[in-house]
Amino acid sequence: MALIVQKYGGTSVGSIERIKNVAAKVKARAEAGNQLVVVLSAMAGVTDRLIDLACQASQDPDPRELDVLMATGEQQSVALFTMVARDLGMKAHSLLGFQAAILTDHMYGRARIANIESQRIRQMLDTGHVVVVAGFQGLDAETGDVTTLGRGGSDTTAVALAAALQADVCEIFTDVDGVYTTDPNLVPNARKLPQVSYDEMLEMASLGAKVLEIRSVGFAKEFGVRVHVRSTFSDEEGTMVVPYNEIRERLAVSGVAYNKNEARITVKGVPDQPGVAMKLFTPVSEAGIVVDVIIQNSSEDGHTDLTFTVPKTDYKHAMQLVAKVAADIGADEVLGDPDIAKISIIGTGMRNHSGVATRMFSALARENINIQMINTSEIKISCVVQEKYTELAVRVLHDAFGLAEENQPASEEVV
Amino acid sequence: MALIVQKYGGTSVGSIERIKNVAAKVKARAEAGNQLVVVLSAMAGVTDRLIDLACQASQDPDPRELDVLMATGEQQSVALFTMVARDLGMKAHSLLGFQAAILTDHMYGRARIANIESQRIRQMLDTGHVVVVAGFQGLDAETGDVTTLGRGGSDTTAVALAAALQADVCEIFTDVDGVYTTDPNLVPNARKLPQVSYDEMLEMASLGAKVLEIRSVGFAKEFGVRVHVRSTFSDEEGTMVVPYNEIRERLAVSGVAYNKNEARITVKGVPDQPGVAMKLFTPVSEAGIVVDVIIQNSSEDGHTDLTFTVPKTDYKHAMQLVAKVAADIGADEVLGDPDIAKISIIGTGMRNHSGVATRMFSALARENINIQMINTSEIKISCVVQEKYTELAVRVLHDAFGLAEENQPASEEVV
Repeated sequence: MALIVQKYGGTSVGSIERIKNVAAKVKARAEAGNQLVVVLSAMAGVTDRLIDLACQASQDPDPRELDVLMATGEQQSVALFTMVARDLGMKAHSLLGFQAAILTDHMYGRARIANIESQRIRQMLDTGHVVVVAGFQGLDAETGDVTTLGRGGSDTTAVALAAALQADVCEIFTDVDGVYTTDPNLVPNARKLPQVSYDEMLEMASLGAKVLEIRSVGFAKEFGVRVHVRSTFSDEEGTMVVPYNEIRERLAVSGVAYNKNEARITVKGVPDQPGVAMKLFTPVSEAGIVVDVIIQNSSEDGHTDLTFTVPKTDYKHAMQLVAKVAADIGADEVLGDPDIAKISIIGTGMRNHSGVATRMFSALARENINIQMINTSEIKISCVVQEKYTELAVRVLHDAFGLAEENQPASEEVV
Repeated sequence: MALIVQKYGGTSVGSIERIKNVAAKVKARAEAGNQLVVVLSAMAGVTDRLIDLACQASQDPDPRELDVLMATGEQQSVALFTMVARDLGMKAHSLLGFQAAILTDHMYGRARIANIESQRIRQMLDTGHVVVVAGFQGLDAETGDVTTLGRGGSDTTAVALAAALQADVCEIFTDVDGVYTTDPNLVPNARKLPQVSYDEMLEMASLGAKVLEIRSVGFAKEFGVRVHVRSTFSDEEGTMVVPYNEIRERLAVSGVAYNKNEARITVKGVPDQPGVAMKLFTPVSEAGIVVDVIIQNSSEDGHTDLTFTVPKTDYKHAMQLVAKVAADIGADEVLGDPDIAKISIIGTGMRNHSGVATRMFSALARENINIQMINTSEIKISCVVQEKYTELAVRVLHDAFGLAEENQPASEEVV
C-alpha cells in the first residue's frame, strides 16, 4: 500500500466532465489499495475571472482581500470534485487550507508554507478516506487570515503535503505528459525524459518550462519528495523528478529551453566607479521590474558596458528609468533591443563534462547565429541571440547534443 | 456613537457598481461616528450558478460539500466589498464564518447558529475597523466544517451578530423600502408601515412576504434586536421591527398577505377513528411535502371531511400518496383543487379587538367570494378562496380595514 499525493491542474478539472474523468482515475488508484490525497487547482478560467472582478473593484486590490477572493476558486473545485467522488462510492472528504492546517507566513499572494499539521489528514487516511485538499491556499497561523501561495501554488501544496506525510510519491497531473528535451512544438523529435534531477528541473522551471512551479521543485529537493509529472489525459508514465544520484541515464545536457519574453538593455560607457550598478538598478527594482541576466565586462579605460535583460512588457518603462540614471552618472548612451531570445542548455551532467560550452557556441556559429550575451551557471549555459533565430537555435542545439536519441554521445567524445 | 449591524442582500451587491454604491453608504454612516459591522450576501445570480454547477456534478450533491461550495459566494462578496471600502479610505477588514467564529450545529444547508464568539469583532470595532462579515455561513465548532444557514441566511447572520454585539440596530438593506400593508404591485395605495411588531413580521414572513427571512425574525424577537428594513437604493426610512409595546400606532390589522403557491386536498368521508390522521399524513411528510393549513370538522355520523393544503409543486405527488391511504382507511373520496389562494390578514391588535373576523368575512361576502377554508391564529386570519379572486380579495380587505389611511378605524367602531 502506497501513500500517494496527486495534484490536478486547472485544465484537468476545467469542466464537470473533466472532474468526473479525474474522479474515475482517483478511484482506480484507491481501489488498487493506495492511500490518496488529492490536491486541486481552480477550474481553468476561474482564477482569471476572479482577477478580472478584483480589477473592476480596485485599481490596486488590497492583498489580504485578494487572497480571500482568489481562494474561492480552489474551494469550488474541491467541493465539486468531492461530490462526484462520493457519487462514485469513494469515502471522499474535502479540506480547505485552514482545515488541512496548511500554515503559512503572512505574505499575501505569495505566502510560503511554514508548517503543515498533518495529523488530521493522516487520521482521515487511516480511516479509509480519500482526502481532497484545496491547493494554492493556506492559513496565516498568527492572524487566522486566508493566504495564497501565488500562481502555480497548488504544485507547492502537493509537494509540501507529500513531504509532511512522507508520501511515496507526489504525482503532478497536467496537460503535458512529462518533461521533454525541448518544446515538442518547436522540435518534433523532442524526447520525453524518463527522469530529470531536481536541479535540472529547477533550471528548466526558472527558464520558463511550465510543467512544474519552481518553488515546488525547491521544496521537493529540500525534502527529497519524488515527483512524477504526468498527463491527466493518458495513463502513460511521465517524467520522474528525483535526486541526481538516482538518475540512470546521466546526460551532459538533458534539455534545451528558450525564452522570448525578455528584452535587452545596454548602457555604454559607464564610469567604472563603486556604486554605479546600484544607482542603475535601484529605480528599476523599485518599479517592481525583475532583472534577469546581468553582464558587465571588465573595464580597460575606466569605462565599461553594462548589459541586462528585463521582461519584454517592462522594456519601455525600464528604458525610461535607465536613460534618466545613465545621464546622471555620465554614461555615454543607452541602447535597447526588445527583439531577443534567450536559449539555454541544461544538464546536471555538464558539471563533469568539459567542452559543453564550446559545443554550444560552435553549433550556433555554424548557422551564423551571433551570440549577444552569455551567462552560465553550474548546470546551465544561456545565450542571448536575435529573436528571429529562436527556432533555428533550439533545433540546432537539440541536434548538436543528440537529445532525440536515448543514448546521446558524452560531450568529451565529440569536442 | 451607535453600533450598527447592516446587511445588504444579493441585489444590493449584484455588481461591482452596486458594491461601490453600498460602500459609499457605509462610509457615510461610519464617518457620522458609528461603529459598523457589514454583513453581505452573495452577488445576485452567483448562488444560482453554484447550485447549477452542483447539479451538474451530482444528482444529489453531498450536503457537506454543497455547503463548502455555496459558501464561496459570500466569500467573494466580502473580499470585493472590502477592497472597494479600503480604496474609499475605510479601515475595512473581511471575516469569513470561521474567522468571525459564527458557530453552528452540523445541519448542513440549514445550520442553526449556536453561538458567536464576538470578541474578535469587538476588538476590531474598538480599533476603528469596519468589519465586513460573510453572511449565510458558519463553522461547525465540533468538526471544523463549513456550514450554511439556508436561503436568506444572511438575515440571520446579521440579526445574530446584532444580538451578540448588543448592537443599537440591525439594518436590513434590500430592494424594497420597507414592509407594506400589502403588495404594492396589487394595491397601488398600499402604505409603508413605519413599525411592525416581531409577531406580525413573523406571520408576514411565514405567509410569504420576502422582506425578511423568518428565522431571523424569531432571533430578533428572542434577543430583542431592533431591526430596520430599508432600501439600498434610497435614504428614506423603512420599517422598524420592534416589540409590540413600542408600537405607537396600534392597528387591529396591519397587513394583508396572499399566497398563490398552495393547492387544496380534501378527503371526504374519513372514518372518525383514532390514528386516521396519522395514517394520512405520514406518507406525505415522509415524502418531504410540507403541509400548511389542516382543517377537520367535527364529525356527526362517524365520518368526517379532512382538508389540507400543500405547495402547488407537490400537489400531484401528494394526491397520489393520499389516494392510496384513503382507500386503505375506507374514506369515500379524495378531491383536490390546485387553483386556490390563501388570503390572510395580520395584526397584533386583533388580539384586543373583537369583530375582525366578522369584518373580513363580510367584506369577502359582499363581493361574492366564497370561502373554502378558514384558519386562525392569535394575530392572523387566513381564508382559502378560488385563485381567480386573489387580487380582488386583497384589495377588498385592504379597503375594509382602512389600511391605506394612517389612522384606520378601530374594529369595534365598525362592526
